[in-house]
Amino acid sequence: MGKKVEILSVGTELLMGQIANTNAQYISQRLPEVGLGVFYHSVVGDNPERLTECLHHALSRSDIVITTGGLGPTQDDLTKQVVAEALGLKLVLDQRSAEAIKNYFAATGRTMVESNLRQAYFPENSMILDNEEGTAPGCIIQKDGKIVILLPGPPKELIPMFHKHILKFFKERSEAPLTSKFLRVVGIGESLVEKKLLSLVDGQINPTIATYAKDGIVTIRVTAHDEGGIPASLLVSDTCGKISSILGDAIYTDENEDLEYTVWKLLKQNRLTFSCAESCTGGMLSELMTAVPGASQVFKCAAVTYSTDSKTELIGVDAALIEQYGVVSKETALAMVKGIAQRSGTDVAVSITGYAGPRTGNEPVGKVCIGVVAPGSQNVKEFHFTGNRDRIRVLSVVNALDMVRRAILHIESGE
Amino acid sequence: MGKKVEILSVGTELLMGQIANTNAQYISQRLPEVGLGVFYHSVVGDNPERLTECLHHALSRSDIVITTGGLGPTQDDLTKQVVAEALGLKLVLDQRSAEAIKNYFAATGRTMVESNLRQAYFPENSMILDNEEGTAPGCIIQKDGKIVILLPGPPKELIPMFHKHILKFFKERSEAPLTSKFLRVVGIGESLVEKKLLSLVDGQINPTIATYAKDGIVTIRVTAHDEGGIPASLLVSDTCGKISSILGDAIYTDENEDLEYTVWKLLKQNRLTFSCAESCTGGMLSELMTAVPGASQVFKCAAVTYSTDSKTELIGVDAALIEQYGVVSKETALAMVKGIAQRSGTDVAVSITGYAGPRTGNEPVGKVCIGVVAPGSQNVKEFHFTGNRDRIRVLSVVNALDMVRRAILHIESGE
Repeated sequence: MGKKVEILSVGTELLMGQIANTNAQYISQRLPEVGLGVFYHSVVGDNPERLTECLHHALSRSDIVITTGGLGPTQDDLTKQVVAEALGLKLVLDQRSAEAIKNYFAATGRTMVESNLRQAYFPENSMILDNEEGTAPGCIIQKDGKIVILLPGPPKELIPMFHKHILKFFKERSEAPLTSKFLRVVGIGESLVEKKLLSLVDGQINPTIATYAKDGIVTIRVTAHDEGGIPASLLVSDTCGKISSILGDAIYTDENEDLEYTVWKLLKQNRLTFSCAESCTGGMLSELMTAVPGASQVFKCAAVTYSTDSKTELIGVDAALIEQYGVVSKETALAMVKGIAQRSGTDVAVSITGYAGPRTGNEPVGKVCIGVVAPGSQNVKEFHFTGNRDRIRVLSVVNALDMVRRAILHIESGE
Repeated sequence: MGKKVEILSVGTELLMGQIANTNAQYISQRLPEVGLGVFYHSVVGDNPERLTECLHHALSRSDIVITTGGLGPTQDDLTKQVVAEALGLKLVLDQRSAEAIKNYFAATGRTMVESNLRQAYFPENSMILDNEEGTAPGCIIQKDGKIVILLPGPPKELIPMFHKHILKFFKERSEAPLTSKFLRVVGIGESLVEKKLLSLVDGQINPTIATYAKDGIVTIRVTAHDEGGIPASLLVSDTCGKISSILGDAIYTDENEDLEYTVWKLLKQNRLTFSCAESCTGGMLSELMTAVPGASQVFKCAAVTYSTDSKTELIGVDAALIEQYGVVSKETALAMVKGIAQRSGTDVAVSITGYAGPRTGNEPVGKVCIGVVAPGSQNVKEFHFTGNRDRIRVLSVVNALDMVRRAILHIESGE
């Protein structure tokens, strides 16, 4: 089985920019688990000629083509017809799928229209994949050494189908998979990370080291294949050890997990409860922390004290102190974090107050003060971030989480 | 000028699924404003042979190729070299860019490394596009009737560059653009919207009507071109009028704006202040509202009372009432909204309490109660949403915003 995968997404809504291609992202994230690498993503509209051209091109350069979308009941859902034609296959009715579609409509109390049965026709000799979340089944076609997989467009249908059927299909056929590990770094920019790792990266072929920065976090991917009798996993962990000795406690995880999840785990392992007081970030930190399933085991509450008055009304910050030092000051940040910790009775708390922009007067946009309290410690820092409103908010949240992490681990931040 | 656009995104991080291709989405959303249609998206890794093949293929089928990514200072940033070679152009140093890069490092107090100057080389005769948010300029190349545009990968650099330079470039060259209008609908599912519009959509060619659903909002796109002396804008507004008479007040905007922005505008126009109390949504509503630039004109504060105790501690909900009716009940929702409105003194407030899952006991996951108070009115509703944790949280926020909208507009919700 060849290993080059191309994801061909079909849908005018992608070309109109109404949605991002998160299906391609999801599939790309998962395929390395079964030793497959994605070499291309392509997107084309609901147009038979252009879809045909894209499909032929994909088949000419890739071993496995995974299409997403275009399996629905309407006239502009063309993927099965085009794939069948390109591969020289007939479309045939699958009775089991026809029954399933009828049952789905009966169960959900909706009226089936005749066109829904279009979804029960497949290229001959397909392996048909049930859709438990919708009416459009997917399928796997193998012909002339190529594999073509047709998946539905809605992520809530695609993801369970991929998880259940596609990974299994490839696992059963897998040879020597690649192994990857992802280290994540907070508090250091991408170019500095690259510079520090230069001697390690230079001329490195197996493992390969790649960095990627997003939202204040740098992710370092280390990927290897078995070589000279040494298993890939050993090659990867050896290199990760070297990276660790260079970057130290700026690496917050080797599990490829988000920073809020690492902080949640630390809080949980140490049986600590958590609260926060946010101003310029407007609830972003709270929303991140509560997006973790099981958040309620550590997260108690947040006060989003956006207006100056509400800092006094909700968490009892002394109005005179704000007046004296300013609403964005270390003193106010410290009063906020003490206020929320005291009201909520949590072990750990963090506060954020800053100017995220856009500028309305002569306030220093980007100035953000963050305070943290934890058992036996308190800390407050002033940051000066650059970028637009969203960037400043995101960097504020990331640095607040890092201060919480360091407070729990008793790490001094290396400034 | 030909009109077929292809977006060619370069970056292994896309093929590894570390990020979604939001650059392609953004560019696709904006190009119709200047009468251009995107026909293909392609994604390829940082590999010179495959990038060359993709570029040749793009040039063979499209008139305008916009690349994103691969303009950075590192060895695997290859876009300019590959494009120059494919078009038979030399790379030449641009002195102005070299100066700008040096100044950027001086201004941000960072140390410039020699490789950063790679970013000052461009294919000869390029129109160079300043990068105000980073060090990698973009460029526009015109050759043999084709236009190739190179943009940087980070969205915070690409978006301002696109907005400032690319739209202007095409506006100056535009002929008869398409006109689109986007109506957005809240509170009705996509299939019901499609059913209601069926007689209108059937056989419709100019304008075309397309629907797309995401996160509880259905967007209806109406697109037309001039025909028989009738301007496109008139054809679009005529069809939008017909859609409005069918869907009524479920359409919250014809400006293609997010629901939180519509609600923010309504609050501002009516000089109303706003606060909220959130439980299962964990700050998501607050974060959305404060993401609107100018939020502080209406938004005062939020209490994210995630734990049961904190509903009492932060906003004074009677613990006995929670005990009697349950933490997810209309009674608790109403006490929460009154609590936050009273503490903060805002004119309008909304509360959300619900079970977002995952299930921990026998609580009814998906049950969500939302309360709203506005001048002269109060309302509380119980919802039963389906889907995973994230979906339930998103639907809770959308319906809370819709209840606020209806309260301000005094619309009865059509149940």
